[in-house]
Amino acid sequence: MHDDHPSLTLATFAAGLRFEDIPAPVIRRAEDLFLDWFGSALAGKTGKPVQIIESFARRMGPQDGPSEVLALRRKTSPLFAAMVNAASSHYVEQDDVHNGSVFHPATVVFPVALAVAQSTGASGRELLAASVAGYEVGIRVGEFLGRSHYKIFHTTGTAGSLAAAATVGCLLKLTPEQMLHAFGSAGTQAAGLWEFLRDAADSKQLHTAHAASTGLMAAYIASEGFTGARRILEGAQGMGAGMSRDADPAKLVAGLGQRWTLAETSFKFHASCRHTHPAADALLQVLAAHGLTAEDVAQVTTRVHQGAIDVLGPVVDPKTVHQAKFSMGTVLGLAAVFGSAGLKEFDESFRDPRVIAFRDKVEMVLDEEVDNAYPARWIGKVTVRTNDGRSFDGRVDEPKGDPGNTLSREELEAKALRLAQFSDAASPAELRAAFARIWDLEHCDRIDTLLAAR
Amino acid sequence: MHDDHPSLTLATFAAGLRFEDIPAPVIRRAEDLFLDWFGSALAGKTGKPVQIIESFARRMGPQDGPSEVLALRRKTSPLFAAMVNAASSHYVEQDDVHNGSVFHPATVVFPVALAVAQSTGASGRELLAASVAGYEVGIRVGEFLGRSHYKIFHTTGTAGSLAAAATVGCLLKLTPEQMLHAFGSAGTQAAGLWEFLRDAADSKQLHTAHAASTGLMAAYIASEGFTGARRILEGAQGMGAGMSRDADPAKLVAGLGQRWTLAETSFKFHASCRHTHPAADALLQVLAAHGLTAEDVAQVTTRVHQGAIDVLGPVVDPKTVHQAKFSMGTVLGLAAVFGSAGLKEFDESFRDPRVIAFRDKVEMVLDEEVDNAYPARWIGKVTVRTNDGRSFDGRVDEPKGDPGNTLSREELEAKALRLAQFSDAASPAELRAAFARIWDLEHCDRIDTLLAAR
Repeated sequence: MHDDHPSLTLATFAAGLRFEDIPAPVIRRAEDLFLDWFGSALAGKTGKPVQIIESFARRMGPQDGPSEVLALRRKTSPLFAAMVNAASSHYVEQDDVHNGSVFHPATVVFPVALAVAQSTGASGRELLAASVAGYEVGIRVGEFLGRSHYKIFHTTGTAGSLAAAATVGCLLKLTPEQMLHAFGSAGTQAAGLWEFLRDAADSKQLHTAHAASTGLMAAYIASEGFTGARRILEGAQGMGAGMSRDADPAKLVAGLGQRWTLAETSFKFHASCRHTHPAADALLQVLAAHGLTAEDVAQVTTRVHQGAIDVLGPVVDPKTVHQAKFSMGTVLGLAAVFGSAGLKEFDESFRDPRVIAFRDKVEMVLDEEVDNAYPARWIGKVTVRTNDGRSFDGRVDEPKGDPGNTLSREELEAKALRLAQFSDAASPAELRAAFARIWDLEHCDRIDTLLAAR
Repeated sequence: MHDDHPSLTLATFAAGLRFEDIPAPVIRRAEDLFLDWFGSALAGKTGKPVQIIESFARRMGPQDGPSEVLALRRKTSPLFAAMVNAASSHYVEQDDVHNGSVFHPATVVFPVALAVAQSTGASGRELLAASVAGYEVGIRVGEFLGRSHYKIFHTTGTAGSLAAAATVGCLLKLTPEQMLHAFGSAGTQAAGLWEFLRDAADSKQLHTAHAASTGLMAAYIASEGFTGARRILEGAQGMGAGMSRDADPAKLVAGLGQRWTLAETSFKFHASCRHTHPAADALLQVLAAHGLTAEDVAQVTTRVHQGAIDVLGPVVDPKTVHQAKFSMGTVLGLAAVFGSAGLKEFDESFRDPRVIAFRDKVEMVLDEEVDNAYPARWIGKVTVRTNDGRSFDGRVDEPKGDPGNTLSREELEAKALRLAQFSDAASPAELRAAFARIWDLEHCDRIDTLLAAR
């Protein structure tokens, strides 16, 4: 009756994953990603959408509990801690991304991992293994849902529910059967539409809050016997059928236990939508190689994949910092004028006349090679024409932060320090103490608070 | 900049709706629907999915608050009261349905209306007006999403988020602009897939809990300035684009303020999926007209719309009471053997050998007339062949409980008493006291608890 099928295979993998099964380099990268996420969770402290979701959590949730709202230094139940931390860590657009699935794993995996581990008293090894399970499940679900899904749906919101369910289910020690039910309950709540981008609305953080809270709920109720669809991903009335036109169930199980997708995950270097990064790196390469400044440039043609045009195309005249992060022209303008498109540059200068002038010189065109390589590889290609009539091509095959061009632990710490400084959420001394504990997670017997009073 | 468009028109209507604008017969029907919902909310008390969602609410939510979990007689925050009551009121499949949208409004509208009204101290008139707003929005969203949506998605889950947001937004006195943002935040969280039916899984109550809680959250955060997509319904990356192939934006605004869709809503008479009701009524008509018993019947051909085949077709050999409610053969078998397919009959007899024998004589075939009339009208047509070779056709144009064949207040009270007795959630005396308060909602200055201690 319960024959094997992709959802069951994936659920069985997630339920059975133990620290000992995971290669050491993957564990090290998981620690890197956790620290990187920690910085993003603190950086979101002052964001309006984050503050409003926190206000909702205060109004509707308990005033105390085992789990930590990182940026706010308060404790509540795992549901609300996960909800707020998920919103917060997706606010400054500096959290990690997996290229092949166009999925941001950290912002939906670590909020639930930390909140539930603090509640159950899990060890650092258990937290790390559960987080790896969340990455492996979420990324494969994102790959399964495919490019047609991403045209309309925010994969981090949709696949994120499954990733969160896998993470929490692993910490709650669900059986494979229970994990399958948790997937069913997560998948049937999965949601997140790109329509908000057109209006620069606040939905992006709502999507991660929603993914974290629905995935967490799915796993908790599964632990008490709540059942879900057995084929929520590949079934005839499941996610693939309803929310994709190119869903491929084989991708759900490809290389389980051999291919560690967590290790393919990229850190973000620029503080903007990932779709802008390859072009920004290629532009910086051209400017540096030929000694050009922003003033020298007459036009920039970025040669991009269709997904970039779908997501960034509607953003013509950004009115907010957040929207500016989805404006190819603004990102390239900040990089050209200031040499960097970081949080500080966005915050202070996205409407700087020099940036706007540069922005209006940038166009996107679909490039066959780039589009065919995407989403496995995010190639950056630009053609820069100068005011004196010269033309230069730039190209990067692996943007800064990708696995082959990754950030060192020193660079990761420096980035997290910058992020926490940006929101004034923690002092450098507090951060360094927390960093030390994160690097030593493997030897932590019981996960405690990272910043809040115990 | 903010030109008019269907989502804005609908949001403006919902935000501006006041008790005085609503015709008295619509208000009376809203009271009928509220009382009918109250019975369903109590009936779900003992359902396993309801108990597990309640357990989650106890674990994650506050232990006290202004809002009442009806069947459990406890109080908590509006979010968790709404979540549990929404799950509970959809458990026994006796809650109301709007034919044209194939949407169950009560189970997503009244849980949030009651929970928020108890929190804000709203009057009965405000609760009734907000509930009407929820019905009018949810039903129109369901009609907008259309038949292609319903093939994969559980409209009560998806449109339900918008219905709940409209209800709560009205109680929180959102401006039209804020209501539009609440729609955006609700729609981008809207979810619910039919895949669970294949496995008789517990997701149906999770869908209503999810719709109520996401819609409630959407309205609360909108009241604090959280923005959402302005065209979450009709936009190029909105719900219609992502979750339907025949979405029609004109349906969102048709007849606003003139056509009251709440008054078109049907009460459920049989304790099963609404798609089985027209055929069950037609079968009962044939049996009565020709003095036949279950034993006389050799075969029943039910002539149905495609939606019935989509939803009921996968259920061949139901293993649980809940799944049996989606088995056309079981429903007709119970009606034929016991004269009624009520909660009691399902609970005690869905695997009765006589019912199984009858079930296997029932087939569904697509009928052009029935399919064309659906979903505006739910025509029931059956052909009954007897063991002695006779053949009879039965037909009902309006099943029992539909607006033209509705239940009286006495019948509604009797149904609610049966439902509450089924779960032992309240005594007849308590129920009669609550009924009196419901019939007098219009004159209630401040909504208080209906059953829990104040």
